[in-house]
Amino acid sequence: MKESKNLNDLIDALTILPGIGRKSAQRMAYKLIRSNKEKTLNLSDKLANITKNISNCKICGIYLDNEDIIEQTDDNCHLCVAQNRNPSQVCVTESPADVYMIDNSTDYKGYYFVLTGSLSPLDGRGPVEIGMKRLEARLEKGNINELILATSTTIEGEATAHYIQQLSKNYDVRVSRIAFGIPLNGELGYLDSETISHAFNERKDL
Amino acid sequence: MKESKNLNDLIDALTILPGIGRKSAQRMAYKLIRSNKEKTLNLSDKLANITKNISNCKICGIYLDNEDIIEQTDDNCHLCVAQNRNPSQVCVTESPADVYMIDNSTDYKGYYFVLTGSLSPLDGRGPVEIGMKRLEARLEKGNINELILATSTTIEGEATAHYIQQLSKNYDVRVSRIAFGIPLNGELGYLDSETISHAFNERKDL
Repeated sequence: MKESKNLNDLIDALTILPGIGRKSAQRMAYKLIRSNKEKTLNLSDKLANITKNISNCKICGIYLDNEDIIEQTDDNCHLCVAQNRNPSQVCVTESPADVYMIDNSTDYKGYYFVLTGSLSPLDGRGPVEIGMKRLEARLEKGNINELILATSTTIEGEATAHYIQQLSKNYDVRVSRIAFGIPLNGELGYLDSETISHAFNERKDL
Repeated sequence: MKESKNLNDLIDALTILPGIGRKSAQRMAYKLIRSNKEKTLNLSDKLANITKNISNCKICGIYLDNEDIIEQTDDNCHLCVAQNRNPSQVCVTESPADVYMIDNSTDYKGYYFVLTGSLSPLDGRGPVEIGMKRLEARLEKGNINELILATSTTIEGEATAHYIQQLSKNYDVRVSRIAFGIPLNGELGYLDSETISHAFNERKDL
């Protein structure tokens, strides 16, 4: 039986979304076709929009709407030109999403530096590919006292943190790593044994 | 901290997808922005496309690409004008997706009739809204021997099947319901007790 080609094309296209296989894509497509056309067209517009109107800040690497770029010597974002932030602290993350998470969850008032992912040589992501040259250039400029490594706690994130730690030895800079342990509101029963073992060994006196 | 407006707009727009909350939408948006622009634009196109180029067959109700509509007296689909199918059997489903599932999984060679959902008066879906008038018109024409009710086994699907069963009493037609029981390759431990109780009571001699 011949299914609608337009519908099939949409199902194929939806599978680029992370975590969406063909079955979920099919469910989404059938839902979309029954729902409000304006909303579907709006989603279509917004998708096209991000392919055209977003760039990375050339200094910190977070995402910027093109109309928000502050024309100075370079593409600077509102974070990088902020006068009320502390330029001696730089927090290194793997993705711009992590910057928003940290900035909204903490009272950190330093600067950020976003790598384009974590080290994974087998996937073709070596130091140069993820932006270590840019980071080195930033360290070279001096005036950084503390580099806070907020890469994830995966093997790749750890390797990235280790690489930066080695790199930083050439510079007069304190390097710190965000704390590992049991997440808040976390039940031990749901956690992996590595996390529990780490949290146990790193226990603190009260 | 101000996030990219374009990105935020996309995150909002993605939440129309079924099962996608703000957190998953955020993950999707950040993935999309890093991925191939052509693929994102393709998804955008395909979404816009289904809002324009798909209609329902006026007879059976399945989705049709507009260019596949066969111009006769009405909008007819390839299934409704097929000469090699048996017009005396009509299978009633809640959605066009179910038609494809049944047609690809069985050797059924009759016709189909798609309701626009199942009865749910509280959500404003009464008999008229889901297409009972169209179904009655089809029964009126005669020449149907068997109506196979393939609505789902939810309360709404059951109510819909029951409604059609009552309606069919006015016509000389055999009404059947797809079988309920344990799904194939199903482990009893993962099933709800209602299904198990039903399957137990409906057990068959071997």
